[in-house]
Order: sequence, then structure tokens, then C-alpha cells
Amino acid sequence: MISRNTTTLLKRLSPTLRIAMPNSHLYAHHGSPFKRTESTQSLISLNRNPFKITVIGSGNWGTTIAKVVAENTQHFPHLFQKDVNMWVFQEKIDGENLTDIINTKHQNVKYLPNIDLPENLIANPDLLDSIKGADILVFNVPHQFLPKIVESLKGQVKPWVRAISCLKGFEVGKKGVQLLSSYITDELGIQCGALSGANLAPEVAKEHWSETTVAYQLPKDYKGEGLDVDHKVLKALFHRPYFHVNVIDDVAGISIAGALKNVVALGCGFVEGLGWGNNASAAIQRIGLGEIIKFGQTFFPESRVQTYYQESAGVADLITTCSGGRNVKVAKHMAKTKKNAFEAEKELLNGQSAQGIITCKEVHEWLYTCEMTDEFPLFEVVYQIVYNNFPMEGLPEMIEELGPIEE
Amino acid sequence: MISRNTTTLLKRLSPTLRIAMPNSHLYAHHGSPFKRTESTQSLISLNRNPFKITVIGSGNWGTTIAKVVAENTQHFPHLFQKDVNMWVFQEKIDGENLTDIINTKHQNVKYLPNIDLPENLIANPDLLDSIKGADILVFNVPHQFLPKIVESLKGQVKPWVRAISCLKGFEVGKKGVQLLSSYITDELGIQCGALSGANLAPEVAKEHWSETTVAYQLPKDYKGEGLDVDHKVLKALFHRPYFHVNVIDDVAGISIAGALKNVVALGCGFVEGLGWGNNASAAIQRIGLGEIIKFGQTFFPESRVQTYYQESAGVADLITTCSGGRNVKVAKHMAKTKKNAFEAEKELLNGQSAQGIITCKEVHEWLYTCEMTDEFPLFEVVYQIVYNNFPMEGLPEMIEELGPIEE
Ligand SMILES: NC(=O)c1ccc[n+]([C@@H]2O[C@H](COP(=O)([O-])OP(=O)(O)OC[C@H]3O[C@@H](n4cnc5c(N)ncnc54)[C@H](O)[C@@H]3O)[C@@H](O)[C@H]2O)c1
Ligand SMILES: NC(=O)c1ccc[n+]([C@@H]2O[C@H](COP(=O)([O-])OP(=O)(O)OC[C@H]3O[C@@H](n4cnc5c(N)ncnc54)[C@H](O)[C@@H]3O)[C@@H](O)[C@H]2O)c1
Repeated sequence: MISRNTTTLLKRLSPTLRIAMPNSHLYAHHGSPFKRTESTQSLISLNRNPFKITVIGSGNWGTTIAKVVAENTQHFPHLFQKDVNMWVFQEKIDGENLTDIINTKHQNVKYLPNIDLPENLIANPDLLDSIKGADILVFNVPHQFLPKIVESLKGQVKPWVRAISCLKGFEVGKKGVQLLSSYITDELGIQCGALSGANLAPEVAKEHWSETTVAYQLPKDYKGEGLDVDHKVLKALFHRPYFHVNVIDDVAGISIAGALKNVVALGCGFVEGLGWGNNASAAIQRIGLGEIIKFGQTFFPESRVQTYYQESAGVADLITTCSGGRNVKVAKHMAKTKKNAFEAEKELLNGQSAQGIITCKEVHEWLYTCEMTDEFPLFEVVYQIVYNNFPMEGLPEMIEELGPIEE
Repeated sequence: MISRNTTTLLKRLSPTLRIAMPNSHLYAHHGSPFKRTESTQSLISLNRNPFKITVIGSGNWGTTIAKVVAENTQHFPHLFQKDVNMWVFQEKIDGENLTDIINTKHQNVKYLPNIDLPENLIANPDLLDSIKGADILVFNVPHQFLPKIVESLKGQVKPWVRAISCLKGFEVGKKGVQLLSSYITDELGIQCGALSGANLAPEVAKEHWSETTVAYQLPKDYKGEGLDVDHKVLKALFHRPYFHVNVIDDVAGISIAGALKNVVALGCGFVEGLGWGNNASAAIQRIGLGEIIKFGQTFFPESRVQTYYQESAGVADLITTCSGGRNVKVAKHMAKTKKNAFEAEKELLNGQSAQGIITCKEVHEWLYTCEMTDEFPLFEVVYQIVYNNFPMEGLPEMIEELGPIEE
């Protein structure tokens, strides 16, 4: 039994397929109509010059996103200028400039080897030169380099420029939790959204199907459809057949989820390392999702609960992160060897860091200031395990006793 | 920095731990008070004879739950009669009755080997004899045996008896979707709730920490606290230090989630088998969770959205199921070998079945009757792949095109 629309689709996607279609005439006027017959292209007409894009950053994820963007600027010539600039922190590879290699070989041999890049992606080692004329800046660098980059850009960016941050995380200080997008807005005076999702860069680079979430709020000086960046423009910029994009408003929601998932992943690593199995790991993820939602609702009440459980940047990114990656690895090693977090990090990560170790401390300090550590038992126990040698076997009991009774 | 309650707990759980407690006097009147200082025991006083429990079923999960229950009846003598009956479908093991082995060796050597069972768990091969005097029936048998068992019990169960079904799933017929708990209620005239969660039986049997959800609605003839089964009684019956129970009202929610997760797991198996990686599997789980919620809201509008994303029976069970198990295995094998579902099942499962294969057909037929297949693109594509040889590589495109545009 196949409905009319399904049949059309099946025929198109699989022309050799023979489909039994009983009583198809009955469904001529029924069934939900196609909801996406219009292509993204037809939805957008631009009343201005096409947007110029610069990607700032060229690491594993930076280069991958630059590839996505450069494919789309080819695809939508009325909407985007074809050539995309990518700012590259210059390095010598066997005596040759990384930028020259990228611009001739069309591969980022250091950070994304064996992936062909579009020829309209132009590597540029000069930050200020790379953003000349840009309408949209896509920030995609490791967190620790952001302040210096933003510093260099200060006063150099026109206020009508728009930005998207692909960095995961937030910053916690004395004043509270600050989103990296807000930091960019505050420092550079430009509207900034975020992109986040269940996206391991190498899989996206190989064009294996995945999803992501882009969040962007129209600024006060929004110039109107066809004149300015909006949800449709961002969908056209990032959506690919292998990279499905959903655009929403909730910048806070996707940023919070993207940062806190790393703390949850440490918890999963502990129970895995203790040999407690799948049930326990799923329990940690469930509790973690609940605390992420509560954190969002408490400190960013404007963020939507749906973002956490419905978006790729929410539950899906949590699942991907908890099924592997640095944080799980370090925590597992701690459980198995009884070494502390910093020893484990040193032994396993070769100088890189497991983000959850930093984040759980920031979160703890903020919650402590708010006298709310007891209301986030998982975050608190993870912190106590990492920083105070709390025995991880006590995790379930402590979660249960600290946690609020369910209604 | 540690708050007052955290400190108390840390001290109790880890007495050798030295904790710096700056300004602890400042927190003497602040911080959330302990929320679970009262033990479950002190919350319940019974004004009647202790409840007598019978577990119906003695497979892998049946025996595990019987173990949990029999441990708790020992622990709460004022609340429960110590001896717990377990109905066993009689079999000979090396010429000896399985019931005799269980009652002397205190192990279910066939279905839960190497796990010691409490001595107050009494195996009984006679169904009607096993339920004599029972106040609470815990159903825990494979789905296909339920009708015959219920048939044998008809007219034999007093109307004030209460029941919990530990079976996963529902039944879809011409009339729509029927919960197994409602089926038990309809057939036997007794109130029935459900127990479901991220619970692989062998891990629970080994007392590795996990969580579960019990759902129960007070019946019209509820006799009042201390006289009848209610949420506190059920918590006392099922909660263990290694098996954390949350009791809620939403029987429909946990039953729907428990059935539909198997369809989602097939989807995860397909993308895994295609080698698409973690991002794709997480995407399937995200989309699946969304369709589970939509299915619940459409056909059981009284079920709560929170159940799906906050309960062990919801998101956690989905995650556990999608990280392994029969459905993932069969679907992966299909992707890798290009064999159809039934061949794959035959080759891998040795006569057992992957529940998702049955469920996706039932769900499809029901949605087709409702002319709603297009609104559940993942469920529909999984069905088309399993039953109509739809090429699984088309999964992302079909999901995107069938699915509703997000707001
Ligand atoms: N890699 C992933 O799978 C992934 C996925 C999603 C999000 N992210 C996020 O994307 C962001 C970027 O990650 P990535 O994977 O592209 O980074 P990466 O770890 O590959 O980072 C290396 C980058 O840092 C640059 N760099 C080195 N020293 C520098 C310096 N002194 N100043 C400026 N730049 C310097 C290098 O040139 C290179 O471009 C991070 O915030 C990360 O959380 C990563
Ligand atoms: N196993 C798990 O990890 C798990 C976890 C959660 C829920 N469940 C659910 O629990 C329920 C029971 O599963 P299980 O794992 O205990 O079962 P199982 O697969 O171990 O089933 C074997 C049981 O069926 C009985 N049986 C065999 N032939 C029979 C017959 N003709 N009539 C009656 N009984 C017969 C056997 O005696 C044995 O008790 C299922 O609905 C399942 O979905 C299972």
C-alpha cells in the first residue's frame, strides 16, 4: 500500500521499481500534498549584488564547511558570488605555503587530506585581505584562537556584515554564560548566528549524509527579503544533498547543547570504562539531555525546549558525541587506569584537550555561584570526579540523591 | 567549591575524601534542601495485608524482573509478602523440570544462566495455581504467548487485582493501535500499567546500574493510600540501588516509544551497513524520536511529549536499541549483502525475529488507512525498504521530500 506522493517519489528515485498501486484513483484528492516541490533556488530572488562569503578558519571542520559553502555558491550564482575566500593560518608544508598548496592542488593536505576542494575556494593567508568585500563571515576556528582573530578584525568590519559561528561552546565568566555568537556581535558589532549539529567533520567531508542546525535571528537593521541575509539565504548557503540543514531562531539553544554535550560524554566514558554497559550509557545521556534542557531554560529562558530534543544540534549531536570522541576516550581511560583526568588527557590526546574537562569546571563554578549545583547532579558529579577524585562508582547514588524528585 | 548538600553526600559516599569547604557557614540556610532524605519505606504505611506478587513469565527479562521484585519483597516486609511466585512454561533440562532446578539451584539455567536468584522466588509450572491470592500480576512473556496466557486467565482474576506489563510494544489492528496493557485490562477486567526502559536484561541481571520507567494510572475503584497499588507501591516493588525507577502516569507514551524504537533501529542499521557513520545514525535517531512523538501525539493525544524525551522508556531506550541488538544487526546485514529482510533474519537470528520488521508493516498499514504515510517519512521509508525493495541509498532524499517543512 503506497500513497500517491510516495509513489511519485519512489518512481523518480528508483525508476526500475515496479509498484503495486491499488485504488490509486481514490487518492487523487487525498494525502498530504508535496511539501517541498519548490527548490530552494526558486524561493529566493535577490534585489542586490550577490553575497560574498569568507570562511575564517581552515582546520578539519573549517575546511569542510568551506567546501560545502563553495559548492553552494557555484549552485546559486544569483544569490552568491562564486569565489569563496578561506582565511588560512599560514604554515609551511615541506617548504611550501599551505595556501599555495590549497590553491593549486585543491586539497588541504594538512587538515583535510584526500578530499578534493572546489576550485572556487581561494585560500588567503591575510586575514584582513580575506574579508575584503565580504557580506557573510563564517567563523570556524578552534575556540582558543577566536579572541586574537576577533581582536584583529575590530573596526575593520562593516556593521551590515552578517556572521555565522561554527564553533561549539560558550564562555562562562563572572557575569555568567556568554554565547560565542554574542561575543562576536559584542566585539565586532555585527549580527551573528550559529551552526551546530551531529557533524564529525571527516564524514561530512566524504559527503556521507548528515544533518545540521543553523540558528539566526534577524537583526534590528534587517533590510528585507532579497536584500539581506535571512533563513532562506542561510539554507541555500549551507544545505547540500548530503548535508541537510534546518534553520531556526534559537541561537542560545544550539550553542548550549553544543557545549554541554561534552560534559555528558565524560559521564558516558566513566560508565563505559567501568564496564557497566549500554543501559548505563543511555541513562547518562537521558539525564544529560534533561540537565541541558534545564540549564537552557534556567539561564536562557528564551531558548526553546524543542531545540534540545528535536534538532540535530541537540539530541543528535549528544548521541554522536557520546558514542565516541575525545571526551569519552579520556573518561574511559580514567575509569580503567584510575589515573586522573589530566594524566589521561596527556597520555591519550597528544597535546589536544577534551573540551568537557574545561566545560564541567566552568559550569560548576557558575552553578555554584548561583547555588544550584544540586539541581544539576550529573554535571556536578562529573565535575567532582574530574577535580576532586570523587569515586565514580558513586555516580548513580549521587545523581539520585542530589536530583529533584520527579513530579 | 562544593555546596552543603553535595558535601554531606560526598562525605557519606566517600568517607576518606577530604573536601575543601570555603565559607560553608554561608550556605547553612541556602542551597536546595535534600529532596530524598525520606526512604521509600517510610513513605508507605499499609492498612491491609501485604501485597502478594506473581510474575508471569520466566525468560531472560521475565526472570530478571522476578529477581528484582523478590529482592524488594524481602526489603519491604510490611508492604509485600516475601514469597514471590513466578509462572514458568515448563521444560525439561537434561530430564529435570526447569521449575525444580530453579527452586533448588536458585538459577534459571536455561534463560538466565549464572545469575543467583533470591530463595523467596518460587517457580511454579501451573499458571492458575501461581496466581492464587495474588494482588499484583507482573506480565513478562514474549508477545506471541500473551493471548493464550490471557485466555487461560479469563474469569480467574478478581477485579481488584492490579497488573504491570513488561512487554514491549502494541498491537495494530483494523480499529487502530491498541496498547498491550489495555488489551490485558479489556480481557481480564483488571487495571494494568507498564514497565519499560533502556534495559538489556543481562546487564540488569548482573546489577549494572540502569534506569526504567513504570507507568500506571489509578483505576476508578482505587481504594486509597495504604489500601491499594499506587505509584509509591510500584516504586517500592521495582526500584533497586542498581535499577532506578521513575513512576509516571503515561502508559501510552512509554508503550508507543517501546514499540516504535525498533523501526528506528532498522533505519540505523541501514545507514551503518552503508558505511555512512555516526552522523547518519544520529540523524536517524533524531528523526525517529520526532516521528515517535508525532505518532504519540496524533493517536494518543493524552500522552505527554516529555515522556518521549525525558524518560528512560523514551529517548534512553531508543539510544540503547539503536546502538545494537537484533534490528540493527538485520538491517546492517541487508545493507551489506543486498539480501532482503527475511533472508537476513533467517541467516542471523536462528528462528527469532527482529520486531521492527513486524512493527514497521503494522505502522505502515495503520498510517495508510489514515492517509498519513507522508507525515512519517522515516517509518514509511523503512517499510518501503523492507517490503518493496526500495533502494536504501534513497533514504535521505525521501525523508527530506516526504517530510513536512519545519516551521
Ligand atoms: N572537527 C570536527 O569534527 C568539528 C565538528 C563540529 C564543530 N567543530 C568545531 O569547529 C571549530 C574548528 O575546529 P576544526 O576541527 O576546524 O579545528 P582543528 O582542530 O582542525 O584546528 C586546526 C586549525 O587551527 C589553526 N591554527 C593553528 N594555530 C593557530 C593560531 N596560532 N592562530 C590561529 N589559527 C591557528 C590551524 O591553521 C587549523 O586551521 C572548533 O570550535 C570545533 O569545536 C569541529
Ligand atoms: N530480553 C530483554 O533484554 C528484554 C528487555 C526489555 C523487555 N523485554 C520484553 O520482555 C518480554 C519477555 O522477554 P524475555 O526476554 O523474557 O523472553 P525470552 O525471549 O527469554 O523468552 C523465552 C520465554 O518464553 C517462554 N515460552 C516458550 N514457549 C512458550 C509457550 N509455548 N508458551 C508460553 N511461554 C513460552 C519460555 O519459557 C521463556 O520463559 C518481551 O516482550 C520482550 O520484548 C525483553
